[in-house]
Amino acid sequence: MYNERKISSAVINRLPRYYRYLGDLLENDITRISSKELSIKMNITASQIRQDLNNFGGFGQQGYGYNVEYLYSEIKKILGLDKVYNLIVVGGGNIGQALVNYTNFEKRGFVITAVFDVNPRLIGMTIRGIEVHDVDCMEEFVKNNNVDVAILTLPRSQANTVASNLAEWGVKGMWNFSHVDLNMPDDIKVENVHLTDSLMTLLYKINEVETDEASIIHNTDNNKE
Amino acid sequence: MYNERKISSAVINRLPRYYRYLGDLLENDITRISSKELSIKMNITASQIRQDLNNFGGFGQQGYGYNVEYLYSEIKKILGLDKVYNLIVVGGGNIGQALVNYTNFEKRGFVITAVFDVNPRLIGMTIRGIEVHDVDCMEEFVKNNNVDVAILTLPRSQANTVASNLAEWGVKGMWNFSHVDLNMPDDIKVENVHLTDSLMTLLYKINEVETDEASIIHNTDNNKE
Repeated sequence: MYNERKISSAVINRLPRYYRYLGDLLENDITRISSKELSIKMNITASQIRQDLNNFGGFGQQGYGYNVEYLYSEIKKILGLDKVYNLIVVGGGNIGQALVNYTNFEKRGFVITAVFDVNPRLIGMTIRGIEVHDVDCMEEFVKNNNVDVAILTLPRSQANTVASNLAEWGVKGMWNFSHVDLNMPDDIKVENVHLTDSLMTLLYKINEVETDEASIIHNTDNNKE
Repeated sequence: MYNERKISSAVINRLPRYYRYLGDLLENDITRISSKELSIKMNITASQIRQDLNNFGGFGQQGYGYNVEYLYSEIKKILGLDKVYNLIVVGGGNIGQALVNYTNFEKRGFVITAVFDVNPRLIGMTIRGIEVHDVDCMEEFVKNNNVDVAILTLPRSQANTVASNLAEWGVKGMWNFSHVDLNMPDDIKVENVHLTDSLMTLLYKINEVETDEASIIHNTDNNKE
């Protein structure tokens, strides 16, 4: 029944993390776990865990805890990981190639079926058996194959135009590595991986630590500024 | 004076996005902008923008708007992008190599100075002029060079041990691509790029759209489940 209520995006963003931790537990032959034990491992509160999992009907039993295998397989279903997905890469540069070479995706049912690029030096090449096609063939490919996700690793100036076309041709979601925000209709889902933003955030936090330390030492100096 | 108050991490996470949009405005020779115009572009409320920028003393003037160049350069300073940073890559696989090849980082002052790996086939190689060293030399390198950030693209089983060592040797931040959460002391900053989690979240959202559509059609069927 979980799909009849709107789940908040904060909860959705935490689900893959639950899935990862439960997978680790299974690998270590741990078959049940209390919300408290899980909360220590995951560094979030036990009540947060109970609340999160209640969104999906809750799978815990008072005094027993969670059945790890059951919870893992339920979250797997909720995340839709019991299906196989068809992905294409648009932009066969460094990041695009690295993603094609990342074999773990395939193990999870994320299958990259084609790469598209404009660069004649790349077109015709194969990366781990997957061909790089001319971007001119993309419309036909997308219309003839049921493409779930386009992985966008193309220059930011082109990302919005290409994404709009892909959406029109039937692609349901954009995994966006291009360093620009996409303007998409509501039914097209977007997840951004803005690498430069992430690195900048990290540097800010590092500088903040240093500033804090400096301001403890030079507090009176700072007050004069 | 902005560094004397604690800025929330939500604001910090938005700063690179402000920086990106302001950079675009500058490139298009737009010298001033109201919070309202900026809010439309960025798809967040004008009051959010004013609140965010007030954290740093605010740079807007009533009836005039923001001076784009000034705001851009202030955010640049706040983010610490007026300095040069020394980065190393730990794990010279696909993602590690792609990041070394990403020349935009250097333009922003993020300089990768070395790559470390255990694989004898990679050691001694150079990627865009940057040498891949044996991981056994990492301690000496880190202790002799002021390494700001380690980019971790190594198997998850090793990530925590390696990160702890790096922190002890003086690395201030971890940009973590390994698919595991790091347990670090508070003064070591971590930004995670969990690619698989991000893709799973996207697939959840795609499935949710499809489930919503299906439940409109088959609503009575679902209620029986």
